[in-house]
This record gives sequence, structure tokens and C-alpha cells, in this order.
Amino acid sequence: MDVNAPVKVYMTRKLIGVSPDDSVKRACEVMVEFDIGSLVVVEKNRVVGFFTKSDIIRRVVIPGLPNDTPVREIMSGELITVDANTPVREVLDLMAKKSIKHMLIEEDGEIVGIFSLSDLLTASRRRLETAIAAE
Amino acid sequence: MDVNAPVKVYMTRKLIGVSPDDSVKRACEVMVEFDIGSLVVVEKNRVVGFFTKSDIIRRVVIPGLPNDTPVREIMSGELITVDANTPVREVLDLMAKKSIKHMLIEEDGEIVGIFSLSDLLTASRRRLETAIAAE
Repeated sequence: MDVNAPVKVYMTRKLIGVSPDDSVKRACEVMVEFDIGSLVVVEKNRVVGFFTKSDIIRRVVIPGLPNDTPVREIMSGELITVDANTPVREVLDLMAKKSIKHMLIEEDGEIVGIFSLSDLLTASRRRLETAIAAE
Repeated sequence: MDVNAPVKVYMTRKLIGVSPDDSVKRACEVMVEFDIGSLVVVEKNRVVGFFTKSDIIRRVVIPGLPNDTPVREIMSGELITVDANTPVREVLDLMAKKSIKHMLIEEDGEIVGIFSLSDLLTASRRRLETAIAAE
């Protein structure tokens, strides 16, 4: 992984979204189906929220909310984003400081991707494979 | 990160555990308190189970179990472990293949630590800091 490269090189461009009216249960099924730890919440083609498995633990399981609670009640409405051209090293720094495992990536005012620790794993392994191939 | 180094160099040695009779709610509170994504389940000083936030999503939230369900009903009883001397590159490979974000680390038949993607983040940043300091 070239940590000076812009984060857009390593981010995942495919954003998986649910609607604010979808239930927590439905959202969890989508997370399991796609094997992802976070979802964007989309309304009228705009990202209006975001939440992670940790948010479900904190805001659903601990208070004992039913799994038919709509996503809008537990999503984060304030989105933490970084620009797509931010160097990976800065993004990793921010994620560690904020103790978050997913970061939304913005380009020209629009959310275009997400960077997660799984992308870090993929990038680390890709680097490994390149190194092994070059041996 | 030196990917040929044994995983024990980068693993977290402090294992956070709950009892099989603790409730899912209590376990989630412990995860939030320590900001971790997995817990070992300990009975009579032995690790008898393991589970992650993903397991809670799959086995509690989706089926709609109450949060006072005991941990023993949702934990994984079969533990996936690797030896503490396994090179990090092999561990990362295994984690990617199995789509898991946490790996239990064993030494002389005993579980001595855990390696997670957060440790990968810490290690990547440590390497960064060393590189920057050497500039």
C-alpha cells in the first residue's frame, strides 16, 4: 500500500444503501448478504445517513429496541467524510483517532465511496502478492 | 509492518472475556466500553467460546432474540485459531479467505491473544510513524 496515494485508489466505490424506512432487521440482512460492516441510508438519490454494526450494537441491542425499528431512528445523520484525494496516511490517522473503522469518501460534494479496514486488508495483501511475485 | 514477523508481535495480548451466562446486553456493553469487536467466553479459566459483532447481528438482531439471551446460546463453540508463531502474511491470508476480522492466537495449546484488523491499522500507522521519523 502506498500511503501517500489518494484514498480513492483503495476505497470501495460500490456503496450499498438502504432506505430510511427500512427496518433494522432488513438492514442487518443486507449487511450479512454483502458481508459489510456499514450501510449508507439513501433518500431521493441523496445519502442522508450512515450506520455501522457498532451503531446497531449501541443503539438497538443495548437499549433493547425491536428489530422492526426503522433505520432513520438509529442512523447517524451527521456524516463524517474526507475528500477522495486525501492521502491514505491521513485517512488512517483520522480513523485511528476517531476509533472508526469506516470512512465515507466525498468528491465534488458527493459521496462516491467508502474506505474501511477491510480495504486496508485487501491493500496489504495486494502489496504482499506484488512483493511475492517480484521475488 | 513486517509481514514475515510472527503474528504474536502484533496481536493484542489482553483478552476481554465474558461468562457463558452473561446476557447479550452485558456482552455488548463490554464491547462498547473497551471499543472492541469480539469477545472470548471464559468458563473455569478456559476459553469455551468466541463471538463478534457480526455474530450478534446474525444470531440476535436478525432473528429478533431478546437482549437478555445468554451468551452461550449465540457464541461460536468451535474456535478458529492459529499458532502465535505463524507469519502475519499467512494470518492475513487466512482472514481474507475466511472473511473474518478477528483471529484467536494460540501458544502451547492455550489462547494467548487475538489479532484483528484494528491491530493491522495500528501496525500500519506504527510503520508510518517510523518512516516519517526516519525522513
